[in-house]
Amino acid sequence: MNPYWSETVRKLTPYVPGEQPKLANLVKLNTNENPYGPSPRVAQAMAAEMGDRLRLYPDPDSSALKQAIARHHGVGVDQVFVGNGSDEVLAHVFLGLLKHGRPVLFPDITYSFYPVYCGLYDIDYAAIPLTPDFTIRTDDYLDYGSNGGIIFPNPNAPTGRLLPLGEVERLATGNPGSLVVIDEAYVDFGGTPIPTAIPLIERHANLLVVQTLSKSRSLAGLRVGFAIGQKGLIEGLDRVKNSFNSYPLDRLACVGAVAAMEDDEHFEHTRQAVISSREILARNLVELGFEVLPSAANFLFARHPQRDAAQLAQALRAQSIIVRHFRQPRIDQHLRITIGTDAQCVALTTALRDILASSGP
Amino acid sequence: MNPYWSETVRKLTPYVPGEQPKLANLVKLNTNENPYGPSPRVAQAMAAEMGDRLRLYPDPDSSALKQAIARHHGVGVDQVFVGNGSDEVLAHVFLGLLKHGRPVLFPDITYSFYPVYCGLYDIDYAAIPLTPDFTIRTDDYLDYGSNGGIIFPNPNAPTGRLLPLGEVERLATGNPGSLVVIDEAYVDFGGTPIPTAIPLIERHANLLVVQTLSKSRSLAGLRVGFAIGQKGLIEGLDRVKNSFNSYPLDRLACVGAVAAMEDDEHFEHTRQAVISSREILARNLVELGFEVLPSAANFLFARHPQRDAAQLAQALRAQSIIVRHFRQPRIDQHLRITIGTDAQCVALTTALRDILASSGP
Repeated sequence: MNPYWSETVRKLTPYVPGEQPKLANLVKLNTNENPYGPSPRVAQAMAAEMGDRLRLYPDPDSSALKQAIARHHGVGVDQVFVGNGSDEVLAHVFLGLLKHGRPVLFPDITYSFYPVYCGLYDIDYAAIPLTPDFTIRTDDYLDYGSNGGIIFPNPNAPTGRLLPLGEVERLATGNPGSLVVIDEAYVDFGGTPIPTAIPLIERHANLLVVQTLSKSRSLAGLRVGFAIGQKGLIEGLDRVKNSFNSYPLDRLACVGAVAAMEDDEHFEHTRQAVISSREILARNLVELGFEVLPSAANFLFARHPQRDAAQLAQALRAQSIIVRHFRQPRIDQHLRITIGTDAQCVALTTALRDILASSGP
Repeated sequence: MNPYWSETVRKLTPYVPGEQPKLANLVKLNTNENPYGPSPRVAQAMAAEMGDRLRLYPDPDSSALKQAIARHHGVGVDQVFVGNGSDEVLAHVFLGLLKHGRPVLFPDITYSFYPVYCGLYDIDYAAIPLTPDFTIRTDDYLDYGSNGGIIFPNPNAPTGRLLPLGEVERLATGNPGSLVVIDEAYVDFGGTPIPTAIPLIERHANLLVVQTLSKSRSLAGLRVGFAIGQKGLIEGLDRVKNSFNSYPLDRLACVGAVAAMEDDEHFEHTRQAVISSREILARNLVELGFEVLPSAANFLFARHPQRDAAQLAQALRAQSIIVRHFRQPRIDQHLRITIGTDAQCVALTTALRDILASSGP
């Protein structure tokens, strides 16, 4: 261990992102990227920003982007915070709004970056078990004051299950002394109307909603995320951001993200296509004997009662299809499968049919 | 104050970046941007990366960029860390390598983000006064073990003064128990050969050099910075980064930065142009009665013995010329003036001549 490492670094267990293999011709269903490209307007907007203008710093407040997000979601510009992907937004939320000397609550099966942030900022936490069918039981989080905040993805990851908005509101009402953060990375795949908690922020000062342009806006490669909440929460996040990095969003990300937020047609078209493909894939997996959790996201969480998940993942990889397997208690017999194009879904189903047929239990 | 703010947020005094006015036709000499655009190869490289590929996450390790930087500086890939601008790199350095329960040392007049990072991460610091002529006195930092690290820009900002490499080495040798961070944002304007401390890292395990593509590579709008040091230091920074944000550099920043690092000709041409303009501007300011510190950066730090600096800045602004004035003890009679194009330098000199003539003391 290096003698110049701080105590913080020594104790860290960093997050391990899904593999980004450099091979071509893979059917890449492991990191929940959108199978469709972003709005064509994104490239147009960025083309105008390239060249000499890159010598100048970006707008430190990303005002144009905040305006586009505020317009789309019908909130005030001062209710929007933006960052370098929702991961950066979440990091600032942990340090700025969830560090109170009391444990932060999140599900035992959830986005595995949450405990990492807690390690980075020395925040205590408690992992609350999901029910046996992997749902969040709201009552488990209603402890009226002893927690330092609550955070979970909705729909949850990697399960894909959605907590109804009425339950989200019950959490906010039942925890007036602490912040409730709803991480809605996948919410746009949750149906119509989109089951976002953004309309609830008006009457809940302790509710913060985090979203990303990486999934439904097909911009994982551009790194843009945002949070929406009442003005005081956003001011707190701005204070952290302005004490960390004045300009986390570069010029291209700013203009590209604006263009993506403004193309409603492309957004509707691609999110509906993903939802349709998900429903077809879910039926096909059930036909192959899989148990598939109901998903409101752009992935499915499934297990085969007779087949080991790690072996299935390995067999798929031998056919150049990559899905995500977590070596983690309770879910090590599940696979998380990103919804690809229909052709990719067919390739997956075909490969699984062959694998299941070739060497039965 | 919002009830959900953490103690950290409550105590913060965020950094205030130089103004980024949205008006056109300004002579903008306030934030040390390069007056020349980036290498034309940058836009070419990014054009190939726009479009559908943006749906995919970037390489979390930015391997291609690390390789380009390593090649350019003649170091190993495992001796390079990259981040979203050198501000993000510095933030990770403070948390990961400078937080040891002992005060970090930096000059009293220096980059004003350093004390902000200390506030963000609860790190004690001591500001060591520069000498009356604004130089760093190495002996003041040789306290053999009681400090938690040393950091300063070289050339220093906003003074522009360069500490010779022999003194840098003396600092590293004299503080074996703590890290010495040389923040070389402006070093490429320091002459030929470039007075970077990178060649010293081979024999000093406690030396870390931070650089940016915002200045000499004309990419302030793209947000790319890096650190170079021995492998163990880089591993520590990677641990922090991977506990904060897996993908801080988007796809366009990665490929654009590689193209910029590889265009030696453009780099040499523009940095020499800036150096020449600086020397001419310095002479012209002296002719106007200014006292000008010797600068190894892309800015000058100057004062007029008979004229109030704030008033001068205001009079320039009335002529659409913006320079930076710091309301801070010891330097509130100085102006920091970015080196613009020759035409901009002439506009500045002309305006100053008029201002000085129109209303004498």
